[in-house]
Amino acid sequence: MSTALRVGVAGLGTVGAATVQLLAGQNAMLAARAGRPIEVTAVSARDRRKNRGADLSQMTWCDDARELAVLDDVDVVVELIGGADGIARDLVEAALAAGKHVVTANKALLAHHGTALAARAEAAERVLAYEAAVAGGIPIIKAQRDGLAANRVLRLHGILNGTCNYILTVMRETGRNFHDVLEEAQRLGYAEADPAFDVDGIDAAHKLAILASLAFGRAVDFDNVHVEGIRHISPIDLAYAEELGYRIKLLGIAEDGADGVTQRVHPSMVAKTSPIAQVDGVFNAVAVEGDAVGATLFQGRGAGAGPTASAVVADLVDIATGRGAPVFGVPASALLAAQPAPMDRHRSAYYVRLMVTDRPGVLAEITAVFRDHHVSLEAVVQRARDPHGPVPLVFTTHETEEAAMAQSLARIAGFDFSLEPPRMIRIEAF
Amino acid sequence: MSTALRVGVAGLGTVGAATVQLLAGQNAMLAARAGRPIEVTAVSARDRRKNRGADLSQMTWCDDARELAVLDDVDVVVELIGGADGIARDLVEAALAAGKHVVTANKALLAHHGTALAARAEAAERVLAYEAAVAGGIPIIKAQRDGLAANRVLRLHGILNGTCNYILTVMRETGRNFHDVLEEAQRLGYAEADPAFDVDGIDAAHKLAILASLAFGRAVDFDNVHVEGIRHISPIDLAYAEELGYRIKLLGIAEDGADGVTQRVHPSMVAKTSPIAQVDGVFNAVAVEGDAVGATLFQGRGAGAGPTASAVVADLVDIATGRGAPVFGVPASALLAAQPAPMDRHRSAYYVRLMVTDRPGVLAEITAVFRDHHVSLEAVVQRARDPHGPVPLVFTTHETEEAAMAQSLARIAGFDFSLEPPRMIRIEAF
Repeated sequence: MSTALRVGVAGLGTVGAATVQLLAGQNAMLAARAGRPIEVTAVSARDRRKNRGADLSQMTWCDDARELAVLDDVDVVVELIGGADGIARDLVEAALAAGKHVVTANKALLAHHGTALAARAEAAERVLAYEAAVAGGIPIIKAQRDGLAANRVLRLHGILNGTCNYILTVMRETGRNFHDVLEEAQRLGYAEADPAFDVDGIDAAHKLAILASLAFGRAVDFDNVHVEGIRHISPIDLAYAEELGYRIKLLGIAEDGADGVTQRVHPSMVAKTSPIAQVDGVFNAVAVEGDAVGATLFQGRGAGAGPTASAVVADLVDIATGRGAPVFGVPASALLAAQPAPMDRHRSAYYVRLMVTDRPGVLAEITAVFRDHHVSLEAVVQRARDPHGPVPLVFTTHETEEAAMAQSLARIAGFDFSLEPPRMIRIEAF
Repeated sequence: MSTALRVGVAGLGTVGAATVQLLAGQNAMLAARAGRPIEVTAVSARDRRKNRGADLSQMTWCDDARELAVLDDVDVVVELIGGADGIARDLVEAALAAGKHVVTANKALLAHHGTALAARAEAAERVLAYEAAVAGGIPIIKAQRDGLAANRVLRLHGILNGTCNYILTVMRETGRNFHDVLEEAQRLGYAEADPAFDVDGIDAAHKLAILASLAFGRAVDFDNVHVEGIRHISPIDLAYAEELGYRIKLLGIAEDGADGVTQRVHPSMVAKTSPIAQVDGVFNAVAVEGDAVGATLFQGRGAGAGPTASAVVADLVDIATGRGAPVFGVPASALLAAQPAPMDRHRSAYYVRLMVTDRPGVLAEITAVFRDHHVSLEAVVQRARDPHGPVPLVFTTHETEEAAMAQSLARIAGFDFSLEPPRMIRIEAF
């Protein structure tokens, strides 16, 4: 059997520890699949004394992760530190410069610096692999890059953040509000102490930018992802969605159209019967539409130690067997420039919920605004009656332009009978 | 750019023609992804005059597909002829012997001769790729072999035949019977003129044997797949399934357990809310449970020109870029021997439907038989009353052994009040 692939692991949190454990526990199986052993020869973490559930005694310990980049007995650096800049970026750049392959789970790093890092990896003739950065255990990077290589991707959409999907699922099932369910998710370990990256859609946007680059062969363009989170989703909206035949999911959607590439992360209403609507709880899913293959859907656990380590180790097996591919599917020099489509020209159907004073004439004033902006209404739901408090007034629209909707809602927000800011959720047809 | 990968295509039916069209139509994109052009240099089919929707004038024409194996300007032979033996097998063996790579969509060939062909490919140091043989456009071979390489697969199950899934879906939605819907499927091109391979479960069994070999690292063992088709599924059973909270799907299920490997293809009742139950119409889906990744599900179109060509061309891109892997995930010499678990020891919950004379004492006699064989009943549904004709009597059981169920049903079939053969459908918990 050939010589071992020697791995340095930077970061021994739950994912790093699971990666080291998996490589040790399944070493014979992995060697048979990879054609050679895969051995962890060096590790780096903050606290040397902590028990990682694995024997680290034969591994070189580095207090500074950046040392891994220059160790002679390391062929691949696994970067599990995280963050778009700082040590993680230094380490990845140094490792490539030193002729090491890199495996990373760092979506922020790739969303911000992916194109430049791809060029560095290519110049160094080394692999930069990142299966674990998107959708955890779902092998969506390899599926898109290798499995669907024959396809021009028309559009993709996905549930890319398990925390948000968990919160929305529990809110729908229990009728509880966002803050309640978020707190519970934090207690259960499904949400971070600082949940902003997840619930404000940033994490999903990082992943979407990576998937879109790979799908459309364009430079990674995180700055032009339109991002909205789920803080404003209320149990009322979930109940109306159910009644109208929809589910609310935080989706990442990317499309390469005539006006350029649309990349957007926002709560979306999708038909209850659509495949993506069935994906509940902490599960992730990515749907890719290719011109040859048609509709495909890939689902699995999007986070957690086991699924993420599964993706990291799959990348190591690829490297051990010599399987490689350009970082974003084509050589970095062949990536097309980013060409963002203007979001205000985006066309969609919309769900709009207002909280208004229940008095005569309100509906006439609101519908006049929609008429002025050529927003064509599909349905109006006005049921609750309460002369003393705010009542919900719900509209769904036919396809209309984002700018027209924004202008309409700004005007409606200004009426004295508008007691809360209007809530808008895009309706997607999949 | 490097020299072109030169491809000889054997078989120009809908898939072969779509493959040639895809390679021509997307040649620039594919060259960027593969790092070199992929060119069809030779083709073979029965009728030279037929229009294939592509310009074949620059390609060598072979009247006998076996000639492709020895052409100097062919690096890869794409075998789209089909059949476990005959020309397809001759061609694949000759191509490997002549140092050509092989891409095939031939599930029967691999189910019957996969282990031997894997050894031949390895001895010749050539790739034998077969993404198109299983689940059409879903890149399940690469997903399992590469994407989930870090996992010991515990179990897999899938909808592996689009024809059966279409028929069962339409039967459920319309209440029509099997023969009606089969005829319609034949008119629509979703079923062959001779539907036996599909509706009797053979096609799904071929695919399951391939997936199981890859999943468990064992020699392909088609002969020990337990196979039942869907001819006996009646609208009554679909209606009872719905009432009991289930859907009926033709599933292929493989598990590597303490007693050996179980491989079975049969109609299965699955909870309406399970992910696999949502996969309707001609779609296929494969669920793989790995020890690290947990549950994953991959779905897409399982047949048709575009999806199948997508899989064939993805294999060609792999070969062009030098990506390879052992045929069944590990070297042929490392594949474990097949170790079939005895089906009569299999444990399952069951749905049983009898058609009986509606007279006193029937239920007592039947339940006595179940008691004698230690079959524990979960539910009994007896509702229709008709003193003149047969009435359905439905049971569901707790987990019990296959042999006990078979013996019970044989005894029950012998009663004079049993007006039709008992129908049994296994209930799966996913």
